[in-house]
Amino acid sequence: MLYEISEKAIQLEDQGKKMIKFNLGDTDMPTPPEIIEAAYEAMKQGKTKYSSAAGEKKLREELASIHGVSADNVVITTGSKWAVFSLMFLLLKRGENVVIPSPHWTSYELAARRVGAELRFLRGNLDYDWKIDVENLEGLIDEKTRLLVLNSPSNPTSKVIDAKTFSEIVQIAESKGVTVLSDEVYSDISFVKAKSILDFGEEHILVNSFSKIFAMTGWRIGYAIVENELAQKMIKLNQITTTCVPAFVQYGALKGLESRKKIADEVRDQFRLRADAAIKVLSKAKMKFARPDAPFYLFPKVDGLDSERFALNLLDKGVAVAPGTAFGDYHEYFRIALTVEEAKIREGLETLCEAIV
Amino acid sequence: MLYEISEKAIQLEDQGKKMIKFNLGDTDMPTPPEIIEAAYEAMKQGKTKYSSAAGEKKLREELASIHGVSADNVVITTGSKWAVFSLMFLLLKRGENVVIPSPHWTSYELAARRVGAELRFLRGNLDYDWKIDVENLEGLIDEKTRLLVLNSPSNPTSKVIDAKTFSEIVQIAESKGVTVLSDEVYSDISFVKAKSILDFGEEHILVNSFSKIFAMTGWRIGYAIVENELAQKMIKLNQITTTCVPAFVQYGALKGLESRKKIADEVRDQFRLRADAAIKVLSKAKMKFARPDAPFYLFPKVDGLDSERFALNLLDKGVAVAPGTAFGDYHEYFRIALTVEEAKIREGLETLCEAIV
Repeated sequence: MLYEISEKAIQLEDQGKKMIKFNLGDTDMPTPPEIIEAAYEAMKQGKTKYSSAAGEKKLREELASIHGVSADNVVITTGSKWAVFSLMFLLLKRGENVVIPSPHWTSYELAARRVGAELRFLRGNLDYDWKIDVENLEGLIDEKTRLLVLNSPSNPTSKVIDAKTFSEIVQIAESKGVTVLSDEVYSDISFVKAKSILDFGEEHILVNSFSKIFAMTGWRIGYAIVENELAQKMIKLNQITTTCVPAFVQYGALKGLESRKKIADEVRDQFRLRADAAIKVLSKAKMKFARPDAPFYLFPKVDGLDSERFALNLLDKGVAVAPGTAFGDYHEYFRIALTVEEAKIREGLETLCEAIV
Repeated sequence: MLYEISEKAIQLEDQGKKMIKFNLGDTDMPTPPEIIEAAYEAMKQGKTKYSSAAGEKKLREELASIHGVSADNVVITTGSKWAVFSLMFLLLKRGENVVIPSPHWTSYELAARRVGAELRFLRGNLDYDWKIDVENLEGLIDEKTRLLVLNSPSNPTSKVIDAKTFSEIVQIAESKGVTVLSDEVYSDISFVKAKSILDFGEEHILVNSFSKIFAMTGWRIGYAIVENELAQKMIKLNQITTTCVPAFVQYGALKGLESRKKIADEVRDQFRLRADAAIKVLSKAKMKFARPDAPFYLFPKVDGLDSERFALNLLDKGVAVAPGTAFGDYHEYFRIALTVEEAKIREGLETLCEAIV
């Protein structure tokens, strides 16, 4: 349904309709010009040939130094999505299962299903501020559980898993021999400090991306930090699938890392203002939602809502949102991505609130 | 072994050794500047966001018009390799098999194995100029055969399948209910006209790439032309794996298509001169090989050769080739990619010939 809404919104725009699009996690900010210039320079210098399936050495070393690991543990991927898919493809055998706290990013579910794994969702609860119930989570794990996916800050709730809970979850996973796949793509721009899986050693898996912090969504570059043997398997899979991320894209990303803190601060500040603006409108309309700990999303609830019909009808009013059903069994919810400028956020959310009343 | 040689050659270069590299199908020619400029312009215009998992509409339309199909049948992929892998992933069930005339490009074999399919190779014969024996090919097909892979012009032999043989193969495939996956990435720059699978209707699969004609190997852009239902499946798989080829890369490729004939002519002429130069040296050394119908490769035979040891030893002499074993059971063969300038070809091949005597 996520992709259908997206396609319909584009169709309406093509027909000349003005749309305020809250439906995609694709920031409106441009890729910083220094990244574009660095990629262009690299192209002109001939960084247009086959390159390493592991990633450019310089980029791996820089990421290794940021995360305090060895460059051998860093694998550059065609977006963090390819990291997630390829890891599931490599690790999951048919009949094994993946445990995922929910609501969750659609792609985890679709990728796990596509490689023949079973899914076990831990249903979250807005009334408990989407906190993960560690005991219930433990109850979902059995001898067939291979992976536990964490996503903190979360898409779609923008909640961060607190340090104590994060640590308890990792302990449970370890005691049961389950690997944690921690997707931390919103971490660098989080409003509150988020724990990283790397705080717990290198037995688990970190997945990260350049998309959100550097506004590089369409460039398709992410990375995984994994133990050596798994890194070698990922590299071998890259060799027969995606080959490599274009080297000039990697030199763009490398340039971004130089001003990583500055760019992250700017993005964070911008999204904090947007979140405040959105919260004001939604609170006035007495909408229920958890306060975001991070960009980009809000995930409000409206009692009795049919989220898919709501999202479809709202398109005619010039506003696109993602229905809650795209993130699990959440038909009374919808996701707003604050990836449009503040004035549009106010305008779009007011239209949305009117449509609900 | 192909990748090991490649890594070792790079290591030696890093240590300051001068290497003449015949080991990779990665042309030394730069990506045409108009393609780089078009990609740069597109980046600056904000073509850096998530884009369609099917590919940019304009590029699909242009390719559709070139190939005389509908744009709905064109799927842009992260290199032709991703097209091959994703098609095998989508089409092959465990226990089914793929028939491939050999010697063959390594990735077909690795991809098919990775998705759990079985492989049946039709062994080729240099003495028959690598002509495909249609009767023997038919004998390999059984009720578990799902795909037949053709690669004309061929990597590594650079032979083109003649029109009569091509047509007989397609007839056999159709009579047995087998889909032909035709990888035609060297077709546009072939010295002789090569048949396309599209000459036989749209029931089969065409895989093509921008890598070889436009010297865009590292850009990772290719495409498949498939029937509608399969196109939809590929697009859905892209959505949960690679997402999209960067839009700015696609606008670069689109620019290339504008001068497609001119660029192809230049590349073809260049490689014809290189092939002539190589043939002269190898003939003088009484090497056995088939005359190439296309760029980039020669696949010579030396009786009694241990191709892997030969390739490894040759590295110390500053020459890199790919051992024949990378393309099937061809341990008396090696592959030369003519992707270095003419003078280097002469120098490198003379060193190589001396090493054999």
